[in-house]
Amino acid sequence: MSADPTSAAGVLARCSTLAAISARPDGIERVHLSPEHARANAEVAGWLRQAGLATWQDAAGNQWGRREGRTPGLPALVLGSHLDTVTDAGPYDGILGVALAIAVAQRLGERAATLPFALEVVGFADEEGTRFGAALLGSRAVAGQWDESWWALRDRGGVTLREASVAFGLDPDQIGTAARASDELVGYLEAHIEQGPELEAADESLGVVSSIAGARRMRLTVLGEARHAGGTPYSRRRDALAGASEIVLAIERAGRESGCIATVGQLAVEPGGVNVIPGRAELSVDLRAETDQARDQLWATLEPQLHELCTRRGLRLSVEEWHRATAVACAPRLAAAVGAGIGAKPPTLWSRAGHDAMAMAAITEVGMLFVRCHDGISHHPAESVGEIDVACALDALEAAVLHLAS
Amino acid sequence: MSADPTSAAGVLARCSTLAAISARPDGIERVHLSPEHARANAEVAGWLRQAGLATWQDAAGNQWGRREGRTPGLPALVLGSHLDTVTDAGPYDGILGVALAIAVAQRLGERAATLPFALEVVGFADEEGTRFGAALLGSRAVAGQWDESWWALRDRGGVTLREASVAFGLDPDQIGTAARASDELVGYLEAHIEQGPELEAADESLGVVSSIAGARRMRLTVLGEARHAGGTPYSRRRDALAGASEIVLAIERAGRESGCIATVGQLAVEPGGVNVIPGRAELSVDLRAETDQARDQLWATLEPQLHELCTRRGLRLSVEEWHRATAVACAPRLAAAVGAGIGAKPPTLWSRAGHDAMAMAAITEVGMLFVRCHDGISHHPAESVGEIDVACALDALEAAVLHLAS
Repeated sequence: MSADPTSAAGVLARCSTLAAISARPDGIERVHLSPEHARANAEVAGWLRQAGLATWQDAAGNQWGRREGRTPGLPALVLGSHLDTVTDAGPYDGILGVALAIAVAQRLGERAATLPFALEVVGFADEEGTRFGAALLGSRAVAGQWDESWWALRDRGGVTLREASVAFGLDPDQIGTAARASDELVGYLEAHIEQGPELEAADESLGVVSSIAGARRMRLTVLGEARHAGGTPYSRRRDALAGASEIVLAIERAGRESGCIATVGQLAVEPGGVNVIPGRAELSVDLRAETDQARDQLWATLEPQLHELCTRRGLRLSVEEWHRATAVACAPRLAAAVGAGIGAKPPTLWSRAGHDAMAMAAITEVGMLFVRCHDGISHHPAESVGEIDVACALDALEAAVLHLAS
Repeated sequence: MSADPTSAAGVLARCSTLAAISARPDGIERVHLSPEHARANAEVAGWLRQAGLATWQDAAGNQWGRREGRTPGLPALVLGSHLDTVTDAGPYDGILGVALAIAVAQRLGERAATLPFALEVVGFADEEGTRFGAALLGSRAVAGQWDESWWALRDRGGVTLREASVAFGLDPDQIGTAARASDELVGYLEAHIEQGPELEAADESLGVVSSIAGARRMRLTVLGEARHAGGTPYSRRRDALAGASEIVLAIERAGRESGCIATVGQLAVEPGGVNVIPGRAELSVDLRAETDQARDQLWATLEPQLHELCTRRGLRLSVEEWHRATAVACAPRLAAAVGAGIGAKPPTLWSRAGHDAMAMAAITEVGMLFVRCHDGISHHPAESVGEIDVACALDALEAAVLHLAS
């Protein structure tokens, strides 16, 4: 017997169902425009129809559902999150927000037809950027911020975003049709696991998000000289990995001392022989802070230091910034609705992680509800949420919708 | 018109011919049991027959040629080196030694039939270990030191050494037939580029090798915890890459201060997401020193320090040693022959790089001749030798053979 889909157990069961739609037998990986993406959209579309919504997949591969309000054609309140995952992911990041949105739509049932707005649910196609390196592809298409240069982005196998879109059955020339106009929308409300330890530390199930920190992401390339490890004395070495290692530690130190967050998540060396001094190292940097000013100040101080340490080693450093998101404030009206849904004195926190709401803020007001997760673990198979917290989130999200309607 | 194959220009032309037998259009890569390996063996076999030698490929994929001495069946003096390359290699490492050996055999011509030993030339199949991670597979098979566990080694594509051998047309069950007995051999003489800057600094074309330093190679695995970069404060991080970076710098410092050579040539992180703290890092260590004692003392001091720095970060370090070669002294008789070939007061130096001669030392006396290379560059497309030095090497190697015969 399957759980009631409008219950917390039913929402968790749906997260498990999606977790099983994975490219890897031993874990969760569902990336943009993959066969798993198609299967997840089909599964979610079925749930949306079961909840009484009309469904469609847009030109960016996002899965939508809509239920009209008190009159057909009203601007919509959109509830949702994303359906894609990182590599070796947990089952809740993004997915929980979509499952909650569907359950809330189903709970509202016939009452939805009395609301002063249409109710829409969206499962965004790409938030993580796992496959093509650029994040928020789904929501940025909806926000009308598509960049034509993205079509040439390639995955690890050399497949371009354009080729992958066509293979998925989408028409790249129609990408503009995925964009929504501001006057079609009344707001975007996203529930998401916190991906941090604050709610757990405060012994709270839920929190209102005040703002979403904007990340800057850079690709750093360190160029040295590949030489035989045996024959090259230290005085002649220009070891790209040794320079990159100093960079990793300098970035960590700067993040720690500034109160910002700076992370190197990727590092690759070439040529990669056991007995060859690395001639090239490439690493990623991800910078986040409570304000754009703090984040940018951190990098302005750090970048010259990195160049200097490379120069000391005879290395050349090049820096390519490929992603910069401005911090986004949640709309007071939506934050108030989320807070009212949670109850008296709801905890407020800012999001250190990026979310689809950042992109959606370009076309409509956004609000977010955070759900406590265990030990702040996310982007990892051990990601976990409690059924009691999911039950609270269902109530709060439904109440927030009704609060906005009142 | 092609160059006389017994001239320096002819030897260099053959190095160029082999350089073009590559898996990559834009550089040199010829790994064990690849289609390029087969083509290189066929090309070399043609040259050997042109030089008057009978040819065969042994069960390990090594290419051989033999010319009988003054009576058939005499023990053989083996000249040679290896035909495989690292990734994005230069054209001379190994290959020059094989081309020189063939040219010397051809130069000796009918005189070879008067020698008190047979003359053999070998092109070893795998010295670098590029494909399967274990080096000297060709010469260790000849030395009768084959380890059955090697059959299960896998390349990056998951193909085992056994599968690759069968696909190449070899019979793994016959590997024992590649082994040579000590009483079949009078010695092994290898010419090789220096892969270091010493001869160039001393303004010398050639050098006698006194000994070959033995390398130790370790695989280090650093285990931390993969977590979301945004949501995880520094106090909760167990960042495997930050720990690995400290390790890289500690290894470099220890090598520099001890006068030994310690190199990290590989480093890979998992899961490798831009916004995920690395939970695992794997790196290689290559240690070399003039004596085994100095090398082992370095590691005995260093290893506890690496464990300690990991412990401080809440990381777990595991160390797996997968290669340990004892330093090998060249035989005085062969060193004297090489020295006599070079002339009065030949420079003597020790090899910081490993060579097939190390494996061959298990079954016969070994000697090595080093040829100056520009700026010590090796394992790199810019690897370069001068025609004048190759001419000197041809004369010296031929003279060394005749010196041993006298």
